[in-house]
Amino acid sequence: MTETMTDFRPFIRDVPDFPSPGILFRDVTPLLAAPDAFLAAVKAMAEPFRRLRPDKVLGIEARGFLFGAALARELHVGIVPARKPGKLPRMTESVAYGLEYGKDRLEVHSDAFGRGERVLIVDDVLATGGTARAAIDLAEKLGAEVLGVSVFIELGALGGRSKLGARQAHAVLML
Amino acid sequence: MTETMTDFRPFIRDVPDFPSPGILFRDVTPLLAAPDAFLAAVKAMAEPFRRLRPDKVLGIEARGFLFGAALARELHVGIVPARKPGKLPRMTESVAYGLEYGKDRLEVHSDAFGRGERVLIVDDVLATGGTARAAIDLAEKLGAEVLGVSVFIELGALGGRSKLGARQAHAVLML
Repeated sequence: MTETMTDFRPFIRDVPDFPSPGILFRDVTPLLAAPDAFLAAVKAMAEPFRRLRPDKVLGIEARGFLFGAALARELHVGIVPARKPGKLPRMTESVAYGLEYGKDRLEVHSDAFGRGERVLIVDDVLATGGTARAAIDLAEKLGAEVLGVSVFIELGALGGRSKLGARQAHAVLML
Repeated sequence: MTETMTDFRPFIRDVPDFPSPGILFRDVTPLLAAPDAFLAAVKAMAEPFRRLRPDKVLGIEARGFLFGAALARELHVGIVPARKPGKLPRMTESVAYGLEYGKDRLEVHSDAFGRGERVLIVDDVLATGGTARAAIDLAEKLGAEVLGVSVFIELGALGGRSKLGARQAHAVLML
């Protein structure tokens, strides 16, 4: 280990009762505003997947776009946006999922992946795993191979990892 | 000019009548999926602003997050997300604006910018200029100095540039 470890904790602000009572929201905007820390986080998110040679990153709307675009650049691959319903203009595949706070649907363009393309799913936080699971199902529906899920923060107590099956889940920070 | 010019037009798909009848939507997902072209686009978006030394990029939800995060990395600065209402967990400033198709509101955290910080606003498309204008107003409300607006595509016929005052507006592609 030659790299200096960044302490990422100071770049996360805990906000109680957001978006609803009893939820402790982990605000990553301080990390996004700090270019050295953000770059270190992105490199740490990319690291275990470099040797697996992903073809594309699948970034989950909306914070997953910020991490996903940076990670796609780091790995020099394309980024596919997984979006909320009605946002993508062409033919889509879609999967419903239950969030920690609500219920929603995720869509990708039907031609987003070629058969057998190797996909890395990226989001800011792994909570209950519902969104990540929906992203996996979407990519696999289109014939892609999901290499794993990379997030900046994993909320371990919510057990989201158990929803991802045997796929590699990687988090930079466990909270 | 030593750089080879990329022809970006093949990386945009025109989708008629989206999101509503009469709107010709410019779909940039093919660009996002092509890492060399996306990187070339991001470098072209950054170019006129390098010498102005921005402190931060303000990326507009949601496609502006994809371009903004890549641009922030290119310029080695932080990225501040300008979000739809209710998404940011802490105290916010907000500005209402009229979109080409609808009406909406843009928010940033109240502490997103220090007084006098130099901000570059980033989005995928400059259309009527309503969103870009709201982003300018938001940044200025917080005491930041807006250096300009950088977009991948400008829809020239919609006249959005006229809403930006004397600020530098830069588009890689005029459609």
